[in-house]
Amino acid sequence: MTKNELFENIKRKKSFLCVGLDTDINKIPQHLLEEEDPIFAFNKAIIDATADLCIAYKPNLAFYESLGVKGWIAFEKTVRYIKENYPDQFIIADAKRGDIGNTSSMYAQSFFTDLDIDSVTVAPYMGEDSVTPFLEYKGKWVILLALTSNKGSHDFQLTEDVNGERLFEKVLRKSQEWAGDEQMMYVVGATQGQAFEDIRKIVPNHFLLVPGVGAQGGSLSDVCKYGMNSTCGLIVNSSRAIIYADKTDKFAEAARTEAQKVQAEMAEELKAIL
Amino acid sequence: MTKNELFENIKRKKSFLCVGLDTDINKIPQHLLEEEDPIFAFNKAIIDATADLCIAYKPNLAFYESLGVKGWIAFEKTVRYIKENYPDQFIIADAKRGDIGNTSSMYAQSFFTDLDIDSVTVAPYMGEDSVTPFLEYKGKWVILLALTSNKGSHDFQLTEDVNGERLFEKVLRKSQEWAGDEQMMYVVGATQGQAFEDIRKIVPNHFLLVPGVGAQGGSLSDVCKYGMNSTCGLIVNSSRAIIYADKTDKFAEAARTEAQKVQAEMAEELKAIL
Repeated sequence: MTKNELFENIKRKKSFLCVGLDTDINKIPQHLLEEEDPIFAFNKAIIDATADLCIAYKPNLAFYESLGVKGWIAFEKTVRYIKENYPDQFIIADAKRGDIGNTSSMYAQSFFTDLDIDSVTVAPYMGEDSVTPFLEYKGKWVILLALTSNKGSHDFQLTEDVNGERLFEKVLRKSQEWAGDEQMMYVVGATQGQAFEDIRKIVPNHFLLVPGVGAQGGSLSDVCKYGMNSTCGLIVNSSRAIIYADKTDKFAEAARTEAQKVQAEMAEELKAIL
Repeated sequence: MTKNELFENIKRKKSFLCVGLDTDINKIPQHLLEEEDPIFAFNKAIIDATADLCIAYKPNLAFYESLGVKGWIAFEKTVRYIKENYPDQFIIADAKRGDIGNTSSMYAQSFFTDLDIDSVTVAPYMGEDSVTPFLEYKGKWVILLALTSNKGSHDFQLTEDVNGERLFEKVLRKSQEWAGDEQMMYVVGATQGQAFEDIRKIVPNHFLLVPGVGAQGGSLSDVCKYGMNSTCGLIVNSSRAIIYADKTDKFAEAARTEAQKVQAEMAEELKAIL
């Protein structure tokens, strides 16, 4: 998917919502446990209930891997289901991978060729040759960790170098030597508030993947105030607040209601640029 | 496995070799493709041929994930095979994970509880709460990326902060607030030579996992000269140079021959401390 196609989807749906499929076998409604594949059954219901309200889905690999082989089957079925039924959705494999070149190449092949996923989150610690293998696939995206939503983001990401540049700023600047805004996005946590202003000075045109709205407490209006650009430039993720809105057999309707609330807020915010 | 048990294994086998199971379906001998599970068949033969010469195995998750569900089955079978037949082996899941707390918890459960693996490699970029969920398992280890073996290690890991501390040094220092040398090891690439001296000033007693000997060109004698401590303190990995030493039906014997060469060198190096 190109940057322009993504923006077209955002305009058409008046939404820049990504629904995070952090599907946890211990948190899904009890009655689904009778299904042959409870994780996929849950995801399918959530997807069918929210697809017209969001522009992206982000399965978090950890939740699938934690179930071993069964989890991988559910992950692959989920990806295929989205691609077959909602081909306009941007799929993000939230994997936070990053390894030496030949290993990153294996991950890239797995996500981009075998599963035809649109994008994968990548950790920058190992530098250029850990990231570039993911950039060899036309129409596919790297979403590089820059400033994350968690408390530990302060441990290293805010470290200032001798020139006063913070590590996340160096990641933003340096990685632009590897690819531009048609292939690279950045993860910036919604909890980081005004840091979005500093980030937009370095990457004015890039899309940012923004986790941390909802259960983690980030503010959508702050994110938009400091982070939105002329092509929106934001994909805001919500996982737990939407998918676990209700634990009865009405879970999908409840998820839809929560997604509608977020989408309505987003439609308001988009008026600034549309 | 405790640090002392690991050192006892090193003394008994006169080896601190880790064999990296970077098993690539495109690189294994042709005749194995007729097997029901070629990846496992290859791993089993390599393990049987090298287990008395090494103290650890390191399956690299990327190579298994790239095969999807089949790869995960092969990975789990490999781990179970090692645990059942060679319970003195230290198993390293080379996964380079690291995510927000609840996600890291899922990964930790997957590797440590479900599969009973001894250790997992973790990326430090997201800081404390991305690492600590892995530290809640008694007898299990986090192997944190510090100074990696690849060219891209120069991009961010060597960045000096305002106090002259490089990022990898900050990772070494800061992470000691989270756990000590009975639960944490660090990845330091064999290609980093004299940097081992600087590293030993910060973590004199920790074990280091050292990739980059063999195909990546690092020197075992340099690693030992600058990195060995009184309990060895080194687990040196070789992957491609051992497992792909030969591509005929004699591949396992050839792998054994290569492992023997490395083990003989290691026995020499260990004379300095035994």
